[in-house]
Amino acid sequence: MRIAITAPSTAITPDDAEAVQALAAMGYGELELIFDPQCFASHGHFAGDDARRLKALVDMANRSDIDAIWFAKGGYGACRIAAQAVAAMGPAARGKAFLGYSDQGNMLAALYRDGFDHVAHGPMVSDINRDRGDDAILRALDWLVSRSPSTLAPELRHGTRYAAFNLMTLSMLLGTELEPDLAGHMVIVEEVSEYLYAFDRAFFHVASNLAARGAAGMALGRVSAVPENDRPFGMEAEEIARYWCAKMGLIYGGRMNIGHDADNHVVPFGLHRAG
Amino acid sequence: MRIAITAPSTAITPDDAEAVQALAAMGYGELELIFDPQCFASHGHFAGDDARRLKALVDMANRSDIDAIWFAKGGYGACRIAAQAVAAMGPAARGKAFLGYSDQGNMLAALYRDGFDHVAHGPMVSDINRDRGDDAILRALDWLVSRSPSTLAPELRHGTRYAAFNLMTLSMLLGTELEPDLAGHMVIVEEVSEYLYAFDRAFFHVASNLAARGAAGMALGRVSAVPENDRPFGMEAEEIARYWCAKMGLIYGGRMNIGHDADNHVVPFGLHRAG
Repeated sequence: MRIAITAPSTAITPDDAEAVQALAAMGYGELELIFDPQCFASHGHFAGDDARRLKALVDMANRSDIDAIWFAKGGYGACRIAAQAVAAMGPAARGKAFLGYSDQGNMLAALYRDGFDHVAHGPMVSDINRDRGDDAILRALDWLVSRSPSTLAPELRHGTRYAAFNLMTLSMLLGTELEPDLAGHMVIVEEVSEYLYAFDRAFFHVASNLAARGAAGMALGRVSAVPENDRPFGMEAEEIARYWCAKMGLIYGGRMNIGHDADNHVVPFGLHRAG
Repeated sequence: MRIAITAPSTAITPDDAEAVQALAAMGYGELELIFDPQCFASHGHFAGDDARRLKALVDMANRSDIDAIWFAKGGYGACRIAAQAVAAMGPAARGKAFLGYSDQGNMLAALYRDGFDHVAHGPMVSDINRDRGDDAILRALDWLVSRSPSTLAPELRHGTRYAAFNLMTLSMLLGTELEPDLAGHMVIVEEVSEYLYAFDRAFFHVASNLAARGAAGMALGRVSAVPENDRPFGMEAEEIARYWCAKMGLIYGGRMNIGHDADNHVVPFGLHRAG
């Protein structure tokens, strides 16, 4: 099995790649990880300019000898190439799995919108740098290689349609050419490094739009590394989620085991079938 | 003439009010500024809880002995009450002028959406604390009292429809019950204290949505207090604005004299008629 890694947003380091290669070699003898050199490129904020990031992703996605695309890292930049990338993907890309989160929510959205069947929110190569990062990497590989059920967020219910996003990333792709049809879905959101007032504002935006589109509800991953403001906001993250769900007529789906940390579990997009 | 001040988002201090009263007393003998005590209230992040902020605004807007509503300050919170506030406003409110910016973009949007005729983006009471803040306060009063043309952003053109917003505020109200019809408008945006990658992301979101709604174009106020990131973004704010306007088929309307500073000039919403 061959998994290709590209970086539609920001770059990883060769050390990151080497550490992940070492983990993969120990646990998965048959597995080949192919890091596109674009993963280590630099152009301002990005891992190469738009054209280079686009080409690396599309070339790898269209190769028939590669089974899955694993996104290297989040950051920012995928929204600049996601629609064009998916439009350039042929039949060989459609059979592949795609895994990532954070800014790669833009890629997951565009792929899911276009009917790709194996799109999932879950750990990336850059998670190797987290505390217990090995767990995240092995979970990602377990899902990519064998779709192991133990990799999935344990709260997923049979018969429910899911999608999962970083809240701000989802917020910024609503109404754009990247937005997938989320009617009837339980949409899971997580957040990191945002003030609670910004979380509240984005929840207003996302819940308003999802309710208008006929989504079923919203569930909450972890809300971590919240900066301390000059005064307390007055509500906690879960209270904010419950408030906006109730106000917008969405089901509040409770907490989910996803987030910007090593415990981030996998959420495949679409109808969940247990067992 | 009587102008009422309420704070749909965060609070000002009695010192702010006193300083602005002193300025008004020197220049405008006939003018009465009525600060609702809600302006100084505190509830977590907000100038009083949602119900209190809502009541203060609606009560003042519906008083027939008051000519204008001047928003005290931005921050965050207006999106939580804006739609309900406008829905509770009667005929006496419709003749009034409303002035503010930043988070009050939520109020301006909801008012303009509902057909209010005297809605404008411009300085607020809290601007008294800026360097040369007196200029901003006097400009606001000149517009509220006499609609003096010298208060307007000098770039406004006769025959063009305008609206003006903080970019992130506009981003977060798109697709919600606050979004006004901006078809055919030149939409001016300004930004403060956002990383350039976040500015780029929000510009993608806003330009995509405005193009889909048939807006004419986007123009750019000041983009100030940009935090330094761990690496340079690679494009300046105006380059970003030009890029997304071109990509989305919007006219780029150039620079406008608005922003989070004392030079912030007034932009009335709707069709601009010079002279």
